[in-house]
Amino acid sequence: MRAVELIQKKRDAGTHTREEIFFLVEQYTRDLLPDYQMAAWLMAVYLRGLTPAETTDLTEAMLRSGEVLVFSDLPGIKVGKHSTGGVGDKTSLVIAPVAAAAGVPVPMISGRGLGHSGGTLDKLEAIPGFNVNLSLTEFRRALDQVGCALIGQTREIAPADKKIYALRDVTATVASIPLITGSILSKKLAEGSEALVLDVKVGAGAFMKDEESATRLAESMRAIGTRMGKRVVVLLTDMDQPLGRAAGNALEVVEAVEALHGGGPDDFRAICRELGAWMLHLGGQAASVEQGRERYNELIRSGAAAEKFRQIIAQQGGDARVVDDTGRLPQARQRQDVLAPAGGFLARMETERIGWATMALGAGRQRVDDSVDPAVGLILHKKVGDPVAAREPLATLHFNQPEKLAEAQRWLEGAFVLAPEPPPARPLILKTLAPPAAGLA
Amino acid sequence: MRAVELIQKKRDAGTHTREEIFFLVEQYTRDLLPDYQMAAWLMAVYLRGLTPAETTDLTEAMLRSGEVLVFSDLPGIKVGKHSTGGVGDKTSLVIAPVAAAAGVPVPMISGRGLGHSGGTLDKLEAIPGFNVNLSLTEFRRALDQVGCALIGQTREIAPADKKIYALRDVTATVASIPLITGSILSKKLAEGSEALVLDVKVGAGAFMKDEESATRLAESMRAIGTRMGKRVVVLLTDMDQPLGRAAGNALEVVEAVEALHGGGPDDFRAICRELGAWMLHLGGQAASVEQGRERYNELIRSGAAAEKFRQIIAQQGGDARVVDDTGRLPQARQRQDVLAPAGGFLARMETERIGWATMALGAGRQRVDDSVDPAVGLILHKKVGDPVAAREPLATLHFNQPEKLAEAQRWLEGAFVLAPEPPPARPLILKTLAPPAAGLA
Repeated sequence: MRAVELIQKKRDAGTHTREEIFFLVEQYTRDLLPDYQMAAWLMAVYLRGLTPAETTDLTEAMLRSGEVLVFSDLPGIKVGKHSTGGVGDKTSLVIAPVAAAAGVPVPMISGRGLGHSGGTLDKLEAIPGFNVNLSLTEFRRALDQVGCALIGQTREIAPADKKIYALRDVTATVASIPLITGSILSKKLAEGSEALVLDVKVGAGAFMKDEESATRLAESMRAIGTRMGKRVVVLLTDMDQPLGRAAGNALEVVEAVEALHGGGPDDFRAICRELGAWMLHLGGQAASVEQGRERYNELIRSGAAAEKFRQIIAQQGGDARVVDDTGRLPQARQRQDVLAPAGGFLARMETERIGWATMALGAGRQRVDDSVDPAVGLILHKKVGDPVAAREPLATLHFNQPEKLAEAQRWLEGAFVLAPEPPPARPLILKTLAPPAAGLA
Repeated sequence: MRAVELIQKKRDAGTHTREEIFFLVEQYTRDLLPDYQMAAWLMAVYLRGLTPAETTDLTEAMLRSGEVLVFSDLPGIKVGKHSTGGVGDKTSLVIAPVAAAAGVPVPMISGRGLGHSGGTLDKLEAIPGFNVNLSLTEFRRALDQVGCALIGQTREIAPADKKIYALRDVTATVASIPLITGSILSKKLAEGSEALVLDVKVGAGAFMKDEESATRLAESMRAIGTRMGKRVVVLLTDMDQPLGRAAGNALEVVEAVEALHGGGPDDFRAICRELGAWMLHLGGQAASVEQGRERYNELIRSGAAAEKFRQIIAQQGGDARVVDDTGRLPQARQRQDVLAPAGGFLARMETERIGWATMALGAGRQRVDDSVDPAVGLILHKKVGDPVAAREPLATLHFNQPEKLAEAQRWLEGAFVLAPEPPPARPLILKTLAPPAAGLA
């Protein structure tokens, strides 16, 4: 098999065999296929697409490039959760404990912040002592003992995806539905989940800006996950404005803890409940999604979810007292309000700019080896549709390095769009793609 | 300017500015842009195309990546010639001397064999002592003294094209009209020609298999060459069967010498006359193409063309006596006939297979550093349309290494297709794209 012929085949809109896809992925992972050939193939894939069968083969080839965890010795249906990311998306910190509290094992391999959006690992690391770098043995032990563990992608997990993703990032081949599908699913299936709850974010702050492309990604992930024998639900949820009110690592942990205690912003609570209900349902702890919602409320009300979060934190070496005293989390030394220039209604937020503003304060990385400041970020005082008076604070910036404030403020210029009338309401859950009936059987 | 954004722009079918194209080419030539980014961009170009303005900018950027020869101090309109190549195409060896004999300076930078097709440099090197590796100073001196010089692409000429071509070869991005246009024209314009006669071969033995794609390439080259201020004629000529009867380096020199003396196969003579007539016309030595044809016949008949070839050979260190005694050229030790399995008419030739057969005997390179055997090749005894008796020789292989014969014979299996009736005649010159009227003014 010659790489140049395989590139040519995809260039000419041909369909690869399973052997061809495995050849490309394996050779590339072993450094036997040069970057430039993979780059040409990725661009051909970007422009010509992959069939569902090809996408399945790609996913499986990347999955099998590393270790695939199997927890068949542990009782319960293991359920994974993944979000395509956005600003203020801290749902994992709430729903993983909720599901685990109900007896649904949650083996979760998460990512770090990327571009303007935060990452679950960075948020967890805002909790003093929390260690996301468990070995696979420790991961298994944590899952066995507390029913949930949250770690980062280790070198053993889908190394092909890691290498291909880095190349896509510098060759303008990231935004391809089959390539995204393969990247997400290869990691999620390596973590040993039997069912998946996927949250595809849609809107100005999301990777997918419009419902049409988000739906295509959602359908692709459900189709490929199902082909690979998993029960997969995909929810399309709103990311036209930040989720909740907090953006920035420790600030988001505070909001997650509030939600575990039954508080927190309405939109954030509603999305957690919906995603959590599906985890409970797919994990066999609720006969329907409706019952899942009730069970979810109960697990919050009873304190079982908060207690599970304490156990998870303790198991991973963190200070579990933050669940009862968020004052123990890192706090920024300085605050600065962002004032409304005029009155009216908050009509729209340039959510990506809000994300970049938190990154400018140090909440994320410009480069892989940058360190993150867990304390910095911002709190929104207004959500879309809220009335605003002139000079009223729209948000408060939390920062430590005054020299970074100006850049954050530049990002926020024009990020809050005011109008004389409130905008039409936008649903939080745009669409639910339930697992196919066959998958439920 | 960020490379990834430029890749994205072309990926999304955007149009580059001149600055963007120059940035990509310059950065790549200086090793500041990695291969993988250029590979992704090339695939995006392959699938999205380039506008005429972009193709012009690409050509110019590659041209300006190296030295651009200017012979304004030498009298006469310098005329270049290029063929897209095929099997048995030795026209340069005839028409360069013809044009130079009439006082048209011909500064010719040629290539080596590529794939199944031969290269002018390899053919010239079959002449004992002939040196194609002149310095640019020697090139200029030869042009001044004998009016023609034939050399290889030096490191100074269009280094960007050299680097990009090598990458295209391994990333399945060769067969792109704008990229081919840029590659050919950047080299041809660097050699200092003011007018160009381009021969686009069409058919089974050519790079362009069908008239439609050949026409697109021809139109592209004429358009871009004209935009760059040159007078350009493009002829589409037949390469459905080998040109003439000889394929292989020394064997082709013999046929070229025959043509310079007024002999040789009809098809080869006809194409030489047509291309030569255009060179004479564009070089200002014939008022029309028709007068160019007459002038061509005269230069052959008078012996002026043959004499010019002697001068060219002598100037470049070769044994000029081969023009009068082709027995001085290398000759293969062994011969083997290829017999017709049955009688009928020669209906078709798998011309590419015939080219590969000569390569198998050693007429070309499998790898860049292979050496070429100048003596080997084959002589066709039949051309398409000829009647054939059973067991009559279709061709004779000339070889030195008996162990290579079997592979050559395998290539020839089925390469000669016989039929009970002769096929319809196919024109030799399929199309002539004359220089635009404005260019002629």
